[in-house]
Amino acid sequence: MSTQKLPAQQEDFPGWYNEVVKRAELAEHGPAKGSMIIKPHGYGIWELMQRALDDRFKATGHENVYFPLLIPMSLLEREADHVEGFAPQVAVVTHGGGEKLEEPLAIRPTSEAIIWNTYKRWVQSYRDLPLLYNQWVNVLRWEMRTRLFLRTSEFLWQEGHTAHATADDAMRETLQMLEVYREVAEDVLAIPVFTGRKSPGERFPGAVETYCIEGLMRDAKALQCGTSHFLGQNFGKAYDVTFLNADGDQEHAWGTSWGFSARMVGATIMAHGDDAGLRLPPAAAPIQVVIVPIHRNDEERSTVAAVAEKLRADIAAAGIRVRLDDRDQHRPGYKFAEWELKGVPLRIELGPRDVAADRAVIASRLGGDKEEIHLGALVAGLSDRLTAMQRQMFADALAYRDANTHQAGSFDELAAGVEEQGGFWIGPWCGDASCEAEVATKTKATIRFLPIEPKDPGAACIHCGKPGIDVATWARAY
Amino acid sequence: MSTQKLPAQQEDFPGWYNEVVKRAELAEHGPAKGSMIIKPHGYGIWELMQRALDDRFKATGHENVYFPLLIPMSLLEREADHVEGFAPQVAVVTHGGGEKLEEPLAIRPTSEAIIWNTYKRWVQSYRDLPLLYNQWVNVLRWEMRTRLFLRTSEFLWQEGHTAHATADDAMRETLQMLEVYREVAEDVLAIPVFTGRKSPGERFPGAVETYCIEGLMRDAKALQCGTSHFLGQNFGKAYDVTFLNADGDQEHAWGTSWGFSARMVGATIMAHGDDAGLRLPPAAAPIQVVIVPIHRNDEERSTVAAVAEKLRADIAAAGIRVRLDDRDQHRPGYKFAEWELKGVPLRIELGPRDVAADRAVIASRLGGDKEEIHLGALVAGLSDRLTAMQRQMFADALAYRDANTHQAGSFDELAAGVEEQGGFWIGPWCGDASCEAEVATKTKATIRFLPIEPKDPGAACIHCGKPGIDVATWARAY
Repeated sequence: MSTQKLPAQQEDFPGWYNEVVKRAELAEHGPAKGSMIIKPHGYGIWELMQRALDDRFKATGHENVYFPLLIPMSLLEREADHVEGFAPQVAVVTHGGGEKLEEPLAIRPTSEAIIWNTYKRWVQSYRDLPLLYNQWVNVLRWEMRTRLFLRTSEFLWQEGHTAHATADDAMRETLQMLEVYREVAEDVLAIPVFTGRKSPGERFPGAVETYCIEGLMRDAKALQCGTSHFLGQNFGKAYDVTFLNADGDQEHAWGTSWGFSARMVGATIMAHGDDAGLRLPPAAAPIQVVIVPIHRNDEERSTVAAVAEKLRADIAAAGIRVRLDDRDQHRPGYKFAEWELKGVPLRIELGPRDVAADRAVIASRLGGDKEEIHLGALVAGLSDRLTAMQRQMFADALAYRDANTHQAGSFDELAAGVEEQGGFWIGPWCGDASCEAEVATKTKATIRFLPIEPKDPGAACIHCGKPGIDVATWARAY
Repeated sequence: MSTQKLPAQQEDFPGWYNEVVKRAELAEHGPAKGSMIIKPHGYGIWELMQRALDDRFKATGHENVYFPLLIPMSLLEREADHVEGFAPQVAVVTHGGGEKLEEPLAIRPTSEAIIWNTYKRWVQSYRDLPLLYNQWVNVLRWEMRTRLFLRTSEFLWQEGHTAHATADDAMRETLQMLEVYREVAEDVLAIPVFTGRKSPGERFPGAVETYCIEGLMRDAKALQCGTSHFLGQNFGKAYDVTFLNADGDQEHAWGTSWGFSARMVGATIMAHGDDAGLRLPPAAAPIQVVIVPIHRNDEERSTVAAVAEKLRADIAAAGIRVRLDDRDQHRPGYKFAEWELKGVPLRIELGPRDVAADRAVIASRLGGDKEEIHLGALVAGLSDRLTAMQRQMFADALAYRDANTHQAGSFDELAAGVEEQGGFWIGPWCGDASCEAEVATKTKATIRFLPIEPKDPGAACIHCGKPGIDVATWARAY
């Protein structure tokens, strides 16, 4: 670990982010352009998100499947908007087993094409519906300007793909999965998010509607945290997925798809970190508690080591993720700084005088005074302490988000606001794509979301003055 | 589900396998050559294997990481044996983002190259060692002759990659992970396996020694079930991974790698299935218990439905994976056959007379009489019943394996044995690669493994008559 100070968040947020990712050993660039190596501490955060999502997918009746990485180019091309959206970003395999392929294969940028092409065979009758499937996979979308976790060519995600007998069923599914995303973002990652609907220009290529959860980072920039798409019958028609409905008529199946990716590791870093480094909400912390033994000589060392190891075992037995840092080569102060940098929620310090007094010192990553606690009471209280930290981190992030969410009284206020303060700016919008594009050009802010149900603002568009037809929330975003 | 009978295992094992995979809805071919779609029931089996392995990896101190899918060709070429072994099977990306790439990228056939190229940066001192990392990923090795689960171009696996300060440490790790594989194969999949060492000709390209677990399928053919490689300093040297040892000298790191793949879903099918379909050991069964309600009219239907749903909830609350099959469109007999085909260990039948008598009927996938059980006692006894089935399936498979493992008294006996009976044939071997190749040509059997420690057979080679230097176990294999 470098002992140099991190760049201050306030002064150089991108520099701070890059240094935290590097020094907290979360990830690094891979040898091929745009590729990323996820290190154990970063991957551990992702595993906790995966588990939290996967449990909820299964509780809502979904099953996991696996579709191939490589998709014949001709298959990708069936849904017109879809191919137009993704073709420019596709990586293409032209050779395999030492020979040139007859047809080039795309590495999946997303899997609607190959999945709907398969659903065609799986669906005959309304009794075969719904299909409620998800897959945990890598996908690839060529990127030149990359940023670890946030934007890389290859990334890890889950993609859910469901087929339904009615539009209502598909819409209910779309919004249910949006709610699952909101819950994981807020309850596990402690990131407050707005749920909303994308403007037509920001829709997923091939979707009828795209819904999203949208969070705010510590630099007051927005980040899209997950999307859930109502596909209508677009893919049903493009891939000829028909079924016999209960009335005996042939119909095209209705679809949804929804994705949540490892970019959320980046979101967790940027939503909670401070100038000392990462701060992990306990539910997303691969290590929730670290024990640092303190000693000045071999005798003290062995006295403390035995108690520390017993404490570690007791904490682990209580179902808490704990690490005993008994490395010889580093002094306690160095270890304190390292675990702060890595965002571990609680640190327990244990020295010879603590052992003699049957107590330990506990320090929170959220700051505040260190506390002395009797060893007999320590383990039993840890779970409550972690729960309280989780709540506190959400409350802090929510207060920050609220303080940075504004009603824009005029376009000038919006333009000055996103430039000077950042955050979300809400105002009436005319619904016109060209107006949206003009605002984006002038302010570098985009419409992050509209309300889930369109809402008459009862006022003129903040930019063009035409009648408002919806309420837009603008921000500069990652 | 087709109601046609499966091909009989004894008469057409490959046909039986293909039909079981298809009708039990485990997997199907994807659109690109050599690709596979894993369906929910097949993926569910894989998920249980993943969890069993991952828990054991973590319990033995390993952490998960993620290295990129795409590897610059030049990186692959550093370890001479390694590239020679894998280059012919590599799929190559030549275009990305609409442009021709400066350097073609290989889709990983395995990740030693990219990982050791990175370890170079992660290792400076003996204090940085060991590195104990694993990843769950897809890999691609071009295949023309594919078979679902057993041999496909893209496949899912885990690959562990560790680096150590001494040869002893690396060898201990290699054998520890072999033992983890044995435990999961035997305790979770109920597949008895031999542990052994590969002959030099069967070694992983770039390894000093390859160890394996080897199982026997119901057609008396062997299947390699997992491998653990001692890499010596080969990759340390090829990728220049050096460290300062405790004496202050520069040394190359010692390595291991080990892999277990979704082909083990195929192994589970072939080790346990019978003429009625799949038989899943409870620990690897996505559905352990299925409840089939029986009724002839709407009144009976609603009486039975309430009790069935309560039973389902109680069984689920006991931590058992249960499905209530309340589909209207199928009769009970059809459902019985379907769940037998899908290998569900226990079936509970519940009709109006059962409900009136406060009992249910329980049927085991292993056969035997159906049992009537009082509803009050049913849930409490399920776990023991599943444990007993798990043991029974292992015992049956072990008896089969033992009955098909023979000492070969002569080459003629070996040749006739593998042709007429199949199974494992054990005999002294001279250690000569050309002799091994001749036996393989004559018998289509290969050396599946040698003892973990070389063992003087005290007798002449069964084939060439030269002095025996080791004990080889031969079989025809997948």
